[in-house]
Amino acid sequence: MTITSFSPTVARSKRKDKNLLMIELPEPLFLKALNKQAVSRPPVWMMRQAGRYLPEYRAVRSKITFETLCTTPDLAAEVTLQPVDLLGVDAAVIFSDILVILGAIGVPFYFDLEGGPRISQPIRSASDIDKLVPAEPPSKLAYVGEAIRKVDAILRPRSVPVIGFAGAPFTLAAYAIEGKTSREFAITRRFLIEQPEAFSKLLSHLAEAIIAHLHFQIKSGARAVQLFDTWGGIMSSPEYRQIVYPHTKHVITEIQKAGVPIILYMNGSTPHLNNMLETGADGLSVDWRMPLDQVRQIVGSAPVLQGNLDPTLLYSKPEVIERKTRKMITDHGVSKLIANLGHGILPDVPVEHARAFIDAVKNYS
Amino acid sequence: MTITSFSPTVARSKRKDKNLLMIELPEPLFLKALNKQAVSRPPVWMMRQAGRYLPEYRAVRSKITFETLCTTPDLAAEVTLQPVDLLGVDAAVIFSDILVILGAIGVPFYFDLEGGPRISQPIRSASDIDKLVPAEPPSKLAYVGEAIRKVDAILRPRSVPVIGFAGAPFTLAAYAIEGKTSREFAITRRFLIEQPEAFSKLLSHLAEAIIAHLHFQIKSGARAVQLFDTWGGIMSSPEYRQIVYPHTKHVITEIQKAGVPIILYMNGSTPHLNNMLETGADGLSVDWRMPLDQVRQIVGSAPVLQGNLDPTLLYSKPEVIERKTRKMITDHGVSKLIANLGHGILPDVPVEHARAFIDAVKNYS
Repeated sequence: MTITSFSPTVARSKRKDKNLLMIELPEPLFLKALNKQAVSRPPVWMMRQAGRYLPEYRAVRSKITFETLCTTPDLAAEVTLQPVDLLGVDAAVIFSDILVILGAIGVPFYFDLEGGPRISQPIRSASDIDKLVPAEPPSKLAYVGEAIRKVDAILRPRSVPVIGFAGAPFTLAAYAIEGKTSREFAITRRFLIEQPEAFSKLLSHLAEAIIAHLHFQIKSGARAVQLFDTWGGIMSSPEYRQIVYPHTKHVITEIQKAGVPIILYMNGSTPHLNNMLETGADGLSVDWRMPLDQVRQIVGSAPVLQGNLDPTLLYSKPEVIERKTRKMITDHGVSKLIANLGHGILPDVPVEHARAFIDAVKNYS
Repeated sequence: MTITSFSPTVARSKRKDKNLLMIELPEPLFLKALNKQAVSRPPVWMMRQAGRYLPEYRAVRSKITFETLCTTPDLAAEVTLQPVDLLGVDAAVIFSDILVILGAIGVPFYFDLEGGPRISQPIRSASDIDKLVPAEPPSKLAYVGEAIRKVDAILRPRSVPVIGFAGAPFTLAAYAIEGKTSREFAITRRFLIEQPEAFSKLLSHLAEAIIAHLHFQIKSGARAVQLFDTWGGIMSSPEYRQIVYPHTKHVITEIQKAGVPIILYMNGSTPHLNNMLETGADGLSVDWRMPLDQVRQIVGSAPVLQGNLDPTLLYSKPEVIERKTRKMITDHGVSKLIANLGHGILPDVPVEHARAFIDAVKNYS
């Protein structure tokens, strides 16, 4: 018997066919850990694992634009599968971009020559926000769902779950207002202070679009989702709590109603650990700046932690990577842990170094 | 009697002149707070207070380059005095740039059209480091000392101290290697991982140049100094501790031997509070992300804290600025506190908003 594809719907409909061999698939390790079940070692994946550090990714990408790769389900599925096949990660995060939601609500973007995101017409006024359209994911972002279905059909029989994702309201608002990435996001922060009601309206609009897009990804086969509030850490903790947190929490609560676990990532997470904790997210994905065992002391025993090897540590020799990865797991403990980096894998990391990280987790005992 | 200038040396040499009126100047409030003496309200100043938000600064700057302003003592002194005269801050940080030390050790820099610093030939190898020259501050950076003498002559009779400053070893190394400012400093972090010995040698070389430059500023009249490890927060706390901290601490210890208090600033300070604390710096200047009262809980009662209003909060209406400033002081308490921002004042902040911040501290009771 060869399994070439898998559909839960088909499997259920044929239950009465006595020639059908029913196989109970083991619960994926990633989901067991995220659901706080006992595991013998942490699952492992890497943010941006379908990315430029892989020669196989660069081969696909060399023929087409980033935009084409995002919007062509066969190709997005192909690169999503690469790190699973090549490195054996325990989950496949769908290849996409957090900015696709901006395009869907009427804020077009593109990538400049250096690969940096650019918003064609940044939001700068309340009237810009009034012009936004609601996101209709099944029509405008259908390609994301299609890519997820393709990947899930292949990986579900292998007990590897697909992770869907979206940018969080603040981070998407920051791109929409700033117009590009930034270290300080000074335009965004000025906007939120000078026009708090407009800013809040933007966050609300984004939150609904994010919820719709995540629900759509779940319906398409995503078995967990990650919400990236990558730049939320630029804010002070009390201001994040007052202005941003209600919208972040709203997204998380709505997704959990679908019975799907959600992980919240933040760069600059240390001052925001309590904000992150109180969102009730199932997993907290933290940056590399504070060791996981210290993070655990702050957040208590409730959440699963995800992280947090310094992405630049993957420039180290494989034996150093292995040692630091093992230390991270040992210091924190195996349970309620998903091994990952503290931010996305950098494009110039040698593949063998990424493999050393993955293998160190998989061989942990 | 009019005091037009002041020199401690002259005052001492004329002690036997019975026509000389000897005046015991009160200890500046800033130094009292930094020396942990009782004060009725915190002193206040702002990082980058001699800067573009002041029309009077822009008037001086419009006629000359930033480099000329840095290297012309009369002009540097003039803009250093502006926030004291215009806003009544309690200390005058000398107008200069942290990069001057790089120029002095053989790493020339300039500013691009957007005002960003650029290193002409970034350090990229161990042999680049071998070519560095020792800093000889009295000759190459004499203009900094001269500017300090001029400002101190005017401000000492008014009990306003001059603050000298320098970039910390890591932050200067980051500029020297990266070649420009950066959000991620990925080239720097790759260098430190792949060439740890060369990186350490660079930090050592920089530390000696920094110590020499700070001693020179103290000899010229600076009564306190601040060490800016602005980008140290990009590192993980344990790696900072292992690789960077010994050099930071060395600088701090050497300056304290001169009997002058030193403040350590770090952006992204929250994960690094223990590193900062253990340097033994007299004052810890922290970013805006975590409220000062929470920072105090982590660092304990020993150090003076400096900070930490979110610089973007100065975009708020004056009454909001006043309320948040008062809350910051009340939540932390008056003692062992120097009121400041969490980073430099932004160039497009209205002067009246800066004044609202300064006045809120000065009127605190």
